[in-house]
Amino acid sequence: MIKFEKYHGLGNDFIIFLEDDVKKYNYSELAKQVCHRNFGIGADGMIVVAKSTIGDVRMIFFNADGSEAPMCGNGVRCFSHYVRNNNIVSKDIINVETLAGIIKIETSIRNNKFFAKVNMGSPIFTTKNIPMSIDKEDYILQDITSFDKTFKISSLFMGTTHSVIIVDNIENLDIIKYGSDIENNPLFPKKTNVNFVEVIDNKNIIVKTWERGAGFTYACGTGTCASVVMTHKLNKTENKVTAQLPGGILIIEIIDKSVFMTGPSEKIAEGQYFINLAK
Amino acid sequence: MIKFEKYHGLGNDFIIFLEDDVKKYNYSELAKQVCHRNFGIGADGMIVVAKSTIGDVRMIFFNADGSEAPMCGNGVRCFSHYVRNNNIVSKDIINVETLAGIIKIETSIRNNKFFAKVNMGSPIFTTKNIPMSIDKEDYILQDITSFDKTFKISSLFMGTTHSVIIVDNIENLDIIKYGSDIENNPLFPKKTNVNFVEVIDNKNIIVKTWERGAGFTYACGTGTCASVVMTHKLNKTENKVTAQLPGGILIIEIIDKSVFMTGPSEKIAEGQYFINLAK
Repeated sequence: MIKFEKYHGLGNDFIIFLEDDVKKYNYSELAKQVCHRNFGIGADGMIVVAKSTIGDVRMIFFNADGSEAPMCGNGVRCFSHYVRNNNIVSKDIINVETLAGIIKIETSIRNNKFFAKVNMGSPIFTTKNIPMSIDKEDYILQDITSFDKTFKISSLFMGTTHSVIIVDNIENLDIIKYGSDIENNPLFPKKTNVNFVEVIDNKNIIVKTWERGAGFTYACGTGTCASVVMTHKLNKTENKVTAQLPGGILIIEIIDKSVFMTGPSEKIAEGQYFINLAK
Repeated sequence: MIKFEKYHGLGNDFIIFLEDDVKKYNYSELAKQVCHRNFGIGADGMIVVAKSTIGDVRMIFFNADGSEAPMCGNGVRCFSHYVRNNNIVSKDIINVETLAGIIKIETSIRNNKFFAKVNMGSPIFTTKNIPMSIDKEDYILQDITSFDKTFKISSLFMGTTHSVIIVDNIENLDIIKYGSDIENNPLFPKKTNVNFVEVIDNKNIIVKTWERGAGFTYACGTGTCASVVMTHKLNKTENKVTAQLPGGILIIEIIDKSVFMTGPSEKIAEGQYFINLAK
């Protein structure tokens, strides 16, 4: 039996363990088993809360397929919620060690709900870093054709490869059809996440993200940051924006060159997991 | 907080509650919330363990979509596992009250694994009871064409509407393509589950079920019973058969006119669920 807690951040859900309870297991195998939707508890990812020598606490993150990931925007909010709930760090501002470096998280409680503000780093616009297979310095508002439509696409690296497409009416757009097609456009040698954005006014946008390899998701943290970076760069929004996603709301703020994401986390369950790795 | 346990029977997974812990909630809403794969714990169904005046204990069963179901073959094994684990009934044979009547369950432990033998009732072959919109008494080994193939189909009512198709090689058969097409054949006014069966020898078969409304599943209890009823009726197997499904193994035995299913159940987790029905 292993003590676990389950959290979600806007529908992106995680099983969280303490390092001392799971260190004898192979994390990749454990993640595949516990995240399995039918044979395990079920989640998008597994997080292990570990000791850090350079930060306050360390986040180890594995996807449901058993692959390790350096960082996860929705995951790190759930991680910091767990850390505060269990009093592992007794202060509102937490320095979390990840494979992507130290991430500073500001935690707060409003109306009995937990929120975390995460420094998501800075965008990079050079095509060789996105990466894109094209001989241009950057790639902003360029035409891209997908089936019957031609969109204006703007690409950037924001934690991972993102493309942003601003549309007039997102409600009736077939995200699956166009997203899966543009994801695989040969412009992107490592494919791309595709964020469709409708600008409501200069402080509010709607974002629907087609995630590379994962498909349509409730909320993509880096994709929402990438979307606001672009709407701001194109003078369509101010530097602080409320983004409405299928799973809920994120507040994105650009300060100097850094992008800050504020969003909620909710605890779903806690208990004992009956591991069966021999299976 | 509500005390819960999660179990699965061959990959068909359930959240189980005690009636006293949940009776103040609307069960349909609770099922939708707790079974949600991202915002809840995640499961195919919710089971409530309740008191019975006519049996030893009563099973209340809701699907993840909030609909109530009279019975579930994999679910009732998990239910009886819970009942034995928590010593709610202190005997190996349990009479479970369901909306489908009293179901007799024989529980056993072998090699530290829990098994339950369930009387799944009797098959009905008359087309008006299956139901089928055709003027024939029964419907055994009839030709049905789907895309490029013509299969021999045999239909029956075994807890619900089932069709059985015996094939030479199930390994490379496109279950999704043919299953979804035959499910919607106008012969079946309420559609049909479609079970593809490969007979290995007279005691062993492989079954892959396309479930009406649910698609490809790890294990369909009634579908496996329907499959063995047909292979037995057609003299291809004896009355006791080991059926290999994508999620594991079921033993099906036909005694007189009743069909008995024996299969495992595993406990995955237990703990507290943080309900948030206002969401």
